[in-house]
Amino acid sequence: MRIAIVGAGALGLYYGALLQRSGEDVHFLLRRDYDAVTSHGLRVFSINGDFTLPHVRGYRAPDEIGPVDLVLVGLKTFANDRFPELVGPLVGESTLILTLQNGLGNEEALAELFGGERIIGGVAFLCSNRGEPGEVHHLGAGRIVLGEYQRCDRGRIERLVAMFSKAWVDCRATDDLKRSRWEKLVWNIPFNGLCALLQQPVNMLLAQGACRGLVREIMLEVIAAANAQGLDRPIDEGYADSMLEFSDNMGEYRPSMQIDREERRQLEIASIFGAPLAYGRRQGIEMPRVEMLAILLEQATR
Amino acid sequence: MRIAIVGAGALGLYYGALLQRSGEDVHFLLRRDYDAVTSHGLRVFSINGDFTLPHVRGYRAPDEIGPVDLVLVGLKTFANDRFPELVGPLVGESTLILTLQNGLGNEEALAELFGGERIIGGVAFLCSNRGEPGEVHHLGAGRIVLGEYQRCDRGRIERLVAMFSKAWVDCRATDDLKRSRWEKLVWNIPFNGLCALLQQPVNMLLAQGACRGLVREIMLEVIAAANAQGLDRPIDEGYADSMLEFSDNMGEYRPSMQIDREERRQLEIASIFGAPLAYGRRQGIEMPRVEMLAILLEQATR
Repeated sequence: MRIAIVGAGALGLYYGALLQRSGEDVHFLLRRDYDAVTSHGLRVFSINGDFTLPHVRGYRAPDEIGPVDLVLVGLKTFANDRFPELVGPLVGESTLILTLQNGLGNEEALAELFGGERIIGGVAFLCSNRGEPGEVHHLGAGRIVLGEYQRCDRGRIERLVAMFSKAWVDCRATDDLKRSRWEKLVWNIPFNGLCALLQQPVNMLLAQGACRGLVREIMLEVIAAANAQGLDRPIDEGYADSMLEFSDNMGEYRPSMQIDREERRQLEIASIFGAPLAYGRRQGIEMPRVEMLAILLEQATR
Repeated sequence: MRIAIVGAGALGLYYGALLQRSGEDVHFLLRRDYDAVTSHGLRVFSINGDFTLPHVRGYRAPDEIGPVDLVLVGLKTFANDRFPELVGPLVGESTLILTLQNGLGNEEALAELFGGERIIGGVAFLCSNRGEPGEVHHLGAGRIVLGEYQRCDRGRIERLVAMFSKAWVDCRATDDLKRSRWEKLVWNIPFNGLCALLQQPVNMLLAQGACRGLVREIMLEVIAAANAQGLDRPIDEGYADSMLEFSDNMGEYRPSMQIDREERRQLEIASIFGAPLAYGRRQGIEMPRVEMLAILLEQATR
């Protein structure tokens, strides 16, 4: 499969490298890493075993790549206004577009530009960081859940699942992409938000009863908003408790938004907070704590 | 009048100095400033004019002072567990105790130890800081509103108002001490809390529409809790807007809790947040934003 990677940060480089290693025809749109990758290839340091790709096809502009079978979008969501210039030249008649971005609203934005029938959503549970140019560090997890944006064709989802599985990515299909997106937000909103705001890792928040209680209250607000969106099956409150227990095993984990703040990068507040708040509000769901957290993050990073 | 100052921080030193200057017999219980004050006196740098008191009566222990007519309590509220040892030796049969401390619960704690009939509450609107030992800086305001804790004797309140007025303190009496305390909290909770959490001065919070809106929402939660306490007259929502307008003139003002955090001192979270939350909860009032702010402050200062 001819694949273009747009937004070759840690996520794009990591999945792109795995797909190339398994034999796919992968083309990376690069900026910071262009010189390093095109001259020395790509090095992946992974908990599953390190590997090097000595020859990698890197490009500075999408029209050098042209139409592909699959565009894998890993852009930071605050750059979504660049979809036309970055994704447009890669889209031919039968091109699929898979967004693995954070938060809500990414499928919608791509669908509006390129047609909803070619949009696939993926929820990635990946812990990875960029290292030096040409290097990517895979620190944990890596699972992808894939779903149709418009439920057009379950068959092509199965083919993508097979492709990722062949590349040693833990990948499964879902019939309810919306639910998977919201499930991820149940974790992402409290932990990305609070860890970034307080500049404390996951285990510090969970160690204090009051703060742990706040995390849970925020989770319940997200679950209430999720269940107002017409999911096939509602998310029950027990999901919050299972996420807390799951997080107890994460130790000093620093969510991506905390790292982004430490490194003074822009935060994905609009997609992770703004869009869920808007979807909640549209269904009459109050989310005072989520709203306050978003305002505090915006204010703290001015 | 024979007066003891307990908790000779910026507030205690400032009002004590004004009272001594106007002819009262003032005795300061000191710790950090003992050596400086007993050897060189007290210097007040004030927007109303600087002055020096070359001779000041300073003590290390309250039994060196003994019973007085009036104890003025300016302790940080997290030291209220030291009331027995610090205030006890100063209390005789007819001693009045005036607390000018922050937040809620101080009159109650003093009343339980020394009897409610001798307790006067004062709400101070003062901007002052300690400087070098033996120095205090008065940066703005200074008004005190005095009220009876048990409404025993309006006459003695009038005498205290007269005493402070003679010392050039803008002082007035209130018949509803509870309302005055809550009115101050309408400002103190959002601004002390948010400025300390975000380490931003008042004007930075007010400049952003979303953050200004959050300040207002927090004020409305405090007003709702206040009005559930059985005040003589309720506080209306317009009070929030007038406090916002008032704050627009404060410029880069840093509330005391922000300064305390910058200087890594303990914060008065229990009296300014914990007690109002408990009083609200007892009347069935939800204060999600105030509660979240208190948790975030506790967590941020671990």
